[in-house]
This record gives sequence, C-alpha cells and structure tokens, in this order.
Amino acid sequence: MSVLIVGSTALDSIKTPKAENPRLLGGSASHAAVAASFFAPVKLVGIVGDDFPKRYVQLYKERGIDLEGLQLAKGKTFHWSGEYEVNMNNRRTLETELGVFETFSPKLPVAYRDADYVLLANIAPSLQHHVLDQMQEPKFVVADTMDLWLNIALPDLIKLIRRVHGFVLNDSEARQLTQEDNLLNALKKIHKLGPEYVIIKKGEHGAILSTKKNGMFVSPAYPLQRVVDPTGAGDSFVGAMMGYLSKTRGPVDTNIRKAMVYGSVVASYCCEGFGLKITSRITRQAIEERFRRLQLLTKF
Amino acid sequence: MSVLIVGSTALDSIKTPKAENPRLLGGSASHAAVAASFFAPVKLVGIVGDDFPKRYVQLYKERGIDLEGLQLAKGKTFHWSGEYEVNMNNRRTLETELGVFETFSPKLPVAYRDADYVLLANIAPSLQHHVLDQMQEPKFVVADTMDLWLNIALPDLIKLIRRVHGFVLNDSEARQLTQEDNLLNALKKIHKLGPEYVIIKKGEHGAILSTKKNGMFVSPAYPLQRVVDPTGAGDSFVGAMMGYLSKTRGPVDTNIRKAMVYGSVVASYCCEGFGLKITSRITRQAIEERFRRLQLLTKF
Repeated sequence: MSVLIVGSTALDSIKTPKAENPRLLGGSASHAAVAASFFAPVKLVGIVGDDFPKRYVQLYKERGIDLEGLQLAKGKTFHWSGEYEVNMNNRRTLETELGVFETFSPKLPVAYRDADYVLLANIAPSLQHHVLDQMQEPKFVVADTMDLWLNIALPDLIKLIRRVHGFVLNDSEARQLTQEDNLLNALKKIHKLGPEYVIIKKGEHGAILSTKKNGMFVSPAYPLQRVVDPTGAGDSFVGAMMGYLSKTRGPVDTNIRKAMVYGSVVASYCCEGFGLKITSRITRQAIEERFRRLQLLTKF
Repeated sequence: MSVLIVGSTALDSIKTPKAENPRLLGGSASHAAVAASFFAPVKLVGIVGDDFPKRYVQLYKERGIDLEGLQLAKGKTFHWSGEYEVNMNNRRTLETELGVFETFSPKLPVAYRDADYVLLANIAPSLQHHVLDQMQEPKFVVADTMDLWLNIALPDLIKLIRRVHGFVLNDSEARQLTQEDNLLNALKKIHKLGPEYVIIKKGEHGAILSTKKNGMFVSPAYPLQRVVDPTGAGDSFVGAMMGYLSKTRGPVDTNIRKAMVYGSVVASYCCEGFGLKITSRITRQAIEERFRRLQLLTKF
C-alpha cells in the first residue's frame, strides 16, 4: 500500500566545519520520500521551480516515487542554507528563500486522495491542513513539524495536531510546545491535544513513542562513528517509519516499534553523507543489516 | 559471592530549585554499596569522622553491608555541598571539605583481600591503586571516576585504567579524556589504555558498553516523570551492576547487559529522592518490576 507524503522539496546549501555543499537535494518531503521508498510505493506532493536540476527529478524516479503530485512552477525552488557547529548538534539558518513555496497550494491528483497512509512532513501547518482537507478517509495520518511553526503558526499547528493520529516533534520542540521540561509530562500534554501516538525525536539519543492505549517504546539510535551532515535525519526517520507501516498494513500498535527502528536505521545512513547522497544509494539489504545490528546492540 | 566496594563515604548537602537538604548520607561508596546490597553481600571500604550520624551506620547495617573496612577517625566526615539548576542536568559544587579523607589510607581487613569482584567507586586514583595493591587476585575489577581526577590526577588515573577489567565514566569525561567528540571513537581510545570493558554513562539517555571481544550494548535509562536529586545515580548504576555480576558469577559477557539494566533501574530510584532516601527503602521486587518494564519499553 502506498504512502502519500507532502512537505518541502528544496535545495539545501550546507556548511559544516569540514565542507561546504551548495544546492543539494533537500527538503522534508525529499528526505522522507526517499526513506519511505525502501519499503513502499510513495506518492509525493510538493513544488519545485524551473531551476530545479533534472538530476534530482531523476533521483526521485530511480526510487520509484510517484511525481504526479509534484508541481513544477515558474520561479525559484525553495532554498535553505545553514551551517553546523563543530559537534554537529547545533545548526543555524543562514538564509531561507521561499521561492515558489510562497504561493504554493497543494492540489492532490485524484489518484492520491484515497491513500491510507499519509505523512504530513515538516511544512507550514496551513499546507498540512490543506492536504488533509482533500483526503478521503486515511487510516493513519502522521504530522511532523519544526520550531518555526511553533513560533509563527501555533494556532494552526494546534488545530492540526487534533486532526492526526500521530504527531512527531523533537525534544526541544516538545518542551517549547508544552512548557514542560520533563518529556513524560510533555508527552501527556501532547496527548491531550488529540493524537493517539506521540513521538519525540532525540537525535543521537533515539526517540520515544507514547501511545494512549499501549504504553511507551524507547527506540534506540544507531551509533555512528562519523556524522557528516544530520540535515534530514528526522525526516528520514519518519519517512522510513511511515513506509514500513504502509507496507505492513496490519494494526499500527503491532508494527510501529519496528517501524521506528527502521526509521532510526535510515536516519543513520542519512547522517553519513551530505543531503541524500548516502540515503539514495543504500539498499534494502544494508537497511536490514543495521536493523539486525540494532537488535543485537539492544538485547538484554 | 560478595563485592568489595571502596569509595567516598560522605555527607552531602544538596540544594535544588525546590528544596535544600543538609548532611544527607552520600558519597560514591555509600550509593554504590546500598545499590549493590540488593543483589549480593557487600564489603565496604571507606572512612568517616566522629560527626558521622549513627543512623547512617544503622542504614548500612540494615542493608547487610559489612563495615569491617569502614574506618572511624577523629575529625570531620568528608562533606560535599552542591546545587542543581532548574532542569537538574547541571550542578555546581558549592563547597568540598575533605575532613578525614585528607589523610585516608585504606587498609583492607584480611577477610576482604580475596574478594573476586571489586568496585573502585569514584575517589582519588591513588586510593583506588592502594586498594588494588592489597587484593589477592580479583576476577573482575571495575573503576569509576570523575572529571576532578582527569584535571588533577591524570597520570595516576591512566595507570589505574591499565590495571582494571572495566572502566566507567560519563560522556563528557570520555570526551575530555580522549579529546574525541564522537563517543565511538572515544571508546576505541579508552580500550587502547587497557580495559576489556568500557562503559560510558549518559545520564537520562542511558549508557553504552563497549567490549574488546563481544561488541557493544546500548543500555536504556528508565524514563522518569520526576527527578528530585540525581546525586549518586551514576554510583548506584555501577554499584547495582557489580552487585548483580558478583551474584551471578558466570562469564561477565553473559551477564553484563542485564547487570547494566539493573544498574539503570536502581539509578532511577536514586533520582527520585534526596540522597539515599528512596534507594534505601526499595525492595528487590520493586527493582524487578522496573526491570520488566524496561524490557517491555525497549522490545521491538
């Protein structure tokens, strides 16, 4: 079963202490779609400008991603540039050019509207709403977000959280949203906003899942010896998770733990190269290897 | 089989944003010994002054801890006072009075010298050496440390690391010791200093074990809703771990993962009260409950 993914489709210029990489393929939807594509067919919703390199369209196609929902518009592709500090944990945005995203209004192809699994990857909550409005009756909708929307579009975001089955955010965003320093208390408060499943991403420390009915899951991160560029790791995590869930179909409670671990695995590959350089080249077999390694690493 | 534990036996005055607690029973050996006592008989090596409250001696005795190696000296008990910030992650030392520790030279009772399991809890490396010098041929020796000794007694510490089977430190200490930001690289460098087992404690994010022959283990932390006072959590972790190992005896590789998870469990109780208030009152059954809960929380 395919998974519908909406989010940003962007060009990322990324500076780290060791290298500078301009105009990489980036954006939440790109990372999530490539990650999900290892598990299930993906339908992508996004927009790119006429400067969008053909090789990036080719990359989507090589991963079998359905591009009927990818709009091509006159103007510039969304461009983000950022810089990482030495330890790769802190990053700052150098520049954001919205380009064609400024006037983007996602219109779903008819063939997209009955998708059962929907990932509203990080993008303005109003656009996430707009996509959801066009869907028939999806089985499982997950939304991701970022601190920017907590700062400038909180009411929209709160309304969105009410509409989704699962909500994903990172630890500092969870603290900001709930004004709770303790993550267990933060999870409780987020459940009260609506969603059955809440996932807090903790980067190199893994992730925590909290469910209303089936308790919690502490998900490990794959230990890495070298982090080249963590941009998109969170998007890869949630993309792979949704890909696995839509592939396995069955009850979410039965599959979501494994889905999250697959998410950690793909996120770990994402961190090992700039942009999608590594993620786009891995194989399902390489994913299974790290999955098994994570099983061994955490067994007691 | 009993475990020999040497370390500081102290009075701790602890300030948090919510409360102030003067002259609690503290010190690395106190926390480690009480934690270990739930699993195996403990022989304690330490020193206290004549101001050491009788009720604390009583507490050791109630936990069945052998006090033949606890010296009672004229003068003041080692006293540490510290303050935690709002999020309980950062602490600063307000005052340290060495008292009777200034001239402490641990002399092991004859009955202690053939102990098979030895925990050199956090204390000056010269004292850890001194204890080790008096031992016959222990099967498994683990040393813990703190940043202070990296700063003022590094050559002694490096020599000690060569003499032990297992070395335990926290993530920032591992980075300081090895000048490596990445923990996997730090682990490799520490193995080169000698020990077969290296454990890096990451507080609320759990711990990582690295072994020379049997790979790694990523150990979870028990998620807590309320951290009252984290002082002694690391000592409790390593104390419970050594207690469990000395109880089960068999090959360390077979038991150390479970031992670490028991360590996490006792450390979690430690954090829920000031000093040893909670740890000294729990039961083996309560420990088993959290152990099982951690199994459920991490299964995938």
